Amino acid sequence: MIETYNSIPKPESDEIKQRLEAAHQRLAEQQLLMKDNKLPVFVLFEGWGAAGKGTVLGRVIKDLDPRFFTAVSIHDPSPAEKRKPFLARYFAEIPEAGQFKFLDAGWMTEITKDVLFDRINKQTYKNRIGSVLRFERSLTDNGYLVLKFFFHISKKEQAKRLETLMESKETAWQVDDYDIWENEHYDECGKVFDKFMEDTNTSTVPWNVIDAKSRKWAELQVMETLVAGIDVALKNHNLTVPLIQNIFPLNRMPKLKDVDLKKTISEEDYKVQLKELQEKLENIHNQAYLKGIPIIIAYEGWDAAGKGGNIKRVTAALDPRGYEVHPIASPKPFEKSRHHLWRFWTRLPKTGHFAIFDCTWYGRVMVERLEGFCSENDWQRAYNEINEFEKELSDWGAVIVKFWVHIDKDTQLARFTDRQNTPEKQWKITDEDWRNRDKWDLYEQAVDEMIAKTSTTYAPWHILESNDKKYARIKALKILIDALEKALKEKK
Amino acid sequence: MIETYNSIPKPESDEIKQRLEAAHQRLAEQQLLMKDNKLPVFVLFEGWGAAGKGTVLGRVIKDLDPRFFTAVSIHDPSPAEKRKPFLARYFAEIPEAGQFKFLDAGWMTEITKDVLFDRINKQTYKNRIGSVLRFERSLTDNGYLVLKFFFHISKKEQAKRLETLMESKETAWQVDDYDIWENEHYDECGKVFDKFMEDTNTSTVPWNVIDAKSRKWAELQVMETLVAGIDVALKNHNLTVPLIQNIFPLNRMPKLKDVDLKKTISEEDYKVQLKELQEKLENIHNQAYLKGIPIIIAYEGWDAAGKGGNIKRVTAALDPRGYEVHPIASPKPFEKSRHHLWRFWTRLPKTGHFAIFDCTWYGRVMVERLEGFCSENDWQRAYNEINEFEKELSDWGAVIVKFWVHIDKDTQLARFTDRQNTPEKQWKITDEDWRNRDKWDLYEQAVDEMIAKTSTTYAPWHILESNDKKYARIKALKILIDALEKALKEKK
Repeated sequence: MIETYNSIPKPESDEIKQRLEAAHQRLAEQQLLMKDNKLPVFVLFEGWGAAGKGTVLGRVIKDLDPRFFTAVSIHDPSPAEKRKPFLARYFAEIPEAGQFKFLDAGWMTEITKDVLFDRINKQTYKNRIGSVLRFERSLTDNGYLVLKFFFHISKKEQAKRLETLMESKETAWQVDDYDIWENEHYDECGKVFDKFMEDTNTSTVPWNVIDAKSRKWAELQVMETLVAGIDVALKNHNLTVPLIQNIFPLNRMPKLKDVDLKKTISEEDYKVQLKELQEKLENIHNQAYLKGIPIIIAYEGWDAAGKGGNIKRVTAALDPRGYEVHPIASPKPFEKSRHHLWRFWTRLPKTGHFAIFDCTWYGRVMVERLEGFCSENDWQRAYNEINEFEKELSDWGAVIVKFWVHIDKDTQLARFTDRQNTPEKQWKITDEDWRNRDKWDLYEQAVDEMIAKTSTTYAPWHILESNDKKYARIKALKILIDALEKALKEKK
Repeated sequence: MIETYNSIPKPESDEIKQRLEAAHQRLAEQQLLMKDNKLPVFVLFEGWGAAGKGTVLGRVIKDLDPRFFTAVSIHDPSPAEKRKPFLARYFAEIPEAGQFKFLDAGWMTEITKDVLFDRINKQTYKNRIGSVLRFERSLTDNGYLVLKFFFHISKKEQAKRLETLMESKETAWQVDDYDIWENEHYDECGKVFDKFMEDTNTSTVPWNVIDAKSRKWAELQVMETLVAGIDVALKNHNLTVPLIQNIFPLNRMPKLKDVDLKKTISEEDYKVQLKELQEKLENIHNQAYLKGIPIIIAYEGWDAAGKGGNIKRVTAALDPRGYEVHPIASPKPFEKSRHHLWRFWTRLPKTGHFAIFDCTWYGRVMVERLEGFCSENDWQRAYNEINEFEKELSDWGAVIVKFWVHIDKDTQLARFTDRQNTPEKQWKITDEDWRNRDKWDLYEQAVDEMIAKTSTTYAPWHILESNDKKYARIKALKILIDALEKALKEKK
């Protein structure tokens, strides 16, 4: 690829100047249109050391309104970042709707360095490529414009530039050991870069290789690609995205109406088992902590089904330094203006920790679907997006357990009435609960579809029969313990 | 991929029946919408032998209006087809706007068989994959919906079905040697199929692997994917397509205003050289014929620049059985309703033959651009589409020579006036010629851009200074001879 990069000959400098002016002017106009159309633009600058990424980036943003863009330098992952999935820090950086985000180096640098220094094997490389492809596709599917630039210079040119930089004290700091190593191993690096770009060159997020020998010409190539890309993205507002076939192995699940809700447990059995299971969980949590296994527990269920009480029985068994409970309400404006999974990507546990979600990313295919908070295309696409999200977590090594806390309509009515009539419980019941109850049948249909389409073998749903809350608590603890024991056995 | 194919569990037969009915009804409605929206739908059925492709295809089309679909079986290429580029017979089959085309087997079968029987090496495989990716992308970029199905059954199931088919005389003909071989080499085939699907699985044209164990369930998967795909495509009418960076090596070309049109040749030199060069060309044509090199000559130029006379001096040297001249006028309705390159893909020479185009596929970026016959996005995209088209031809082994026959505005006026005033030449001049002349400056700008962006090293433009037509003729012959000699030398 690098060998066949953009070979449009460099124009005369007068022409470059003229075209640069036009492009900068257009970009300033586009920034307002981006804001009006809520278009997020994510720009990745990659390339050879000393190829001038930073300089050109500085020129690109010079006429932009600083309220609407951020430029971030990405370095080698810190120890804390290494305790999160590979994609987490890039997902965290996605721009808000209507804004620019510029990354000076990013997932290409991280992966290619890992290859060059033999830190990952072929299979991990392949998995990373898969992650990148899904990440980029999921962004564009959700209306993001993603642009990738690779700044290309020759070995000789790079050597010359590094030398010049090192000659002066003011600029020598810009050169690090890796830059020198890269120049010494230019051909080897070139092959790895080529392969990476070939592996991640898609029609929606293609690579743009920039001839970076001349600064102004490089700037013009970037500016014109940027401007053309934004124009296209502005025109394609509200694109309907093709649905992708499910490729993940699914468990066959019953429909809610076929779930037997008569299951109960005696008070005595409950007490004995609860104590026993909590002790067991505490012990297993310690082992999981030592082995660095992250645990993600997702709770969904009907209003008044007993999610809160169920979660309490789990957390009661855990060392408070080793878990976090995330109550998920409707998204805040800064969350709403990003990819629907962003607020979950940024709430992942560290390795060895529990993250318990009280309501989850499944809101997309339940409340957001039924209340029209997203388009039909959005929620239809979300099943696959969620399966992919959980696959990333599972590949990272996470244990994922998803609970649907289930009751019948009569039980809900009894609990609602009880709440309404008991002063100290009244805060628990709102008008919205009653409105949701009116839509029970629609919700049931949506939940059936959700469970059928997202109960993957690596992140299965478990239905907790919670007409008897105690039965449901014991069942949840047993399922958790089973899942953790299995993971511990596999990770010897 | 096959291992992780669509694992949504098969529904109960009642549900299948109900959903099938709904899908067939929707498809019948969609057919009318496709017609209204001029949406072409290209459906590829691939899969294991005896997996039931044909049967399901028969069910899919049962409620369709036969005026608006065609179903074609693709077999191993014939000797005549082998004398065309790999993609030519698939490009020839693309549907018209508003119509369905169903292919029973296609480019996947051809390529994977070639791999399985060691008929192509790794590099050719890679080139084929590149061709397929560009083909599919170019179709979707031009508003086609392309859907690919792979019918999957297990080795055991396939063996059972082949046996059943062979048991009866009425069905035994359906089983060929390849089917039996495929079953015997099931695992080997599976690997090759997997790799092919992985290599050609894109977000715009993904593979849909169909669990084909049950006929009705297979039919439902195909129908629902088809219906969902058409719904999305209908919504995305008039999509603006991102422009792709040029990755082809370009020659630096002068602007038209900088071309020296004062070049001339004396009458005497002309006569001597013409004879000499034509003899040489005749001889070289014979050699090219023997070596099976196809030659494609593209003529574009100003009205009255002397294209016709120039072409005559070339053809005069050729054996009439070995060349064809294609005069290209504005597209007929059946051509207009297909991809803009379709009428050129179907006019390619056989190996060893000349195809001379009097006006070409460059109409897209000249007259169609300036007269608004296509959208801005269409013609902007066309530079790359054309470079890719010519790359296919070049990779196939074709020599491609493109002439811009150039004169200045005054010379054109003189020739127009002469035509108008000479009764036997009056047919050569129309009102349209005068109207085009009024747009000279716009055309010049478009031609400059076209020459700059499509003068690839493998299909270069040559500017023929044709104020002196004779000079231009001699130059054209020399360029042709040079290009052919070079190709002959390389193909020893």
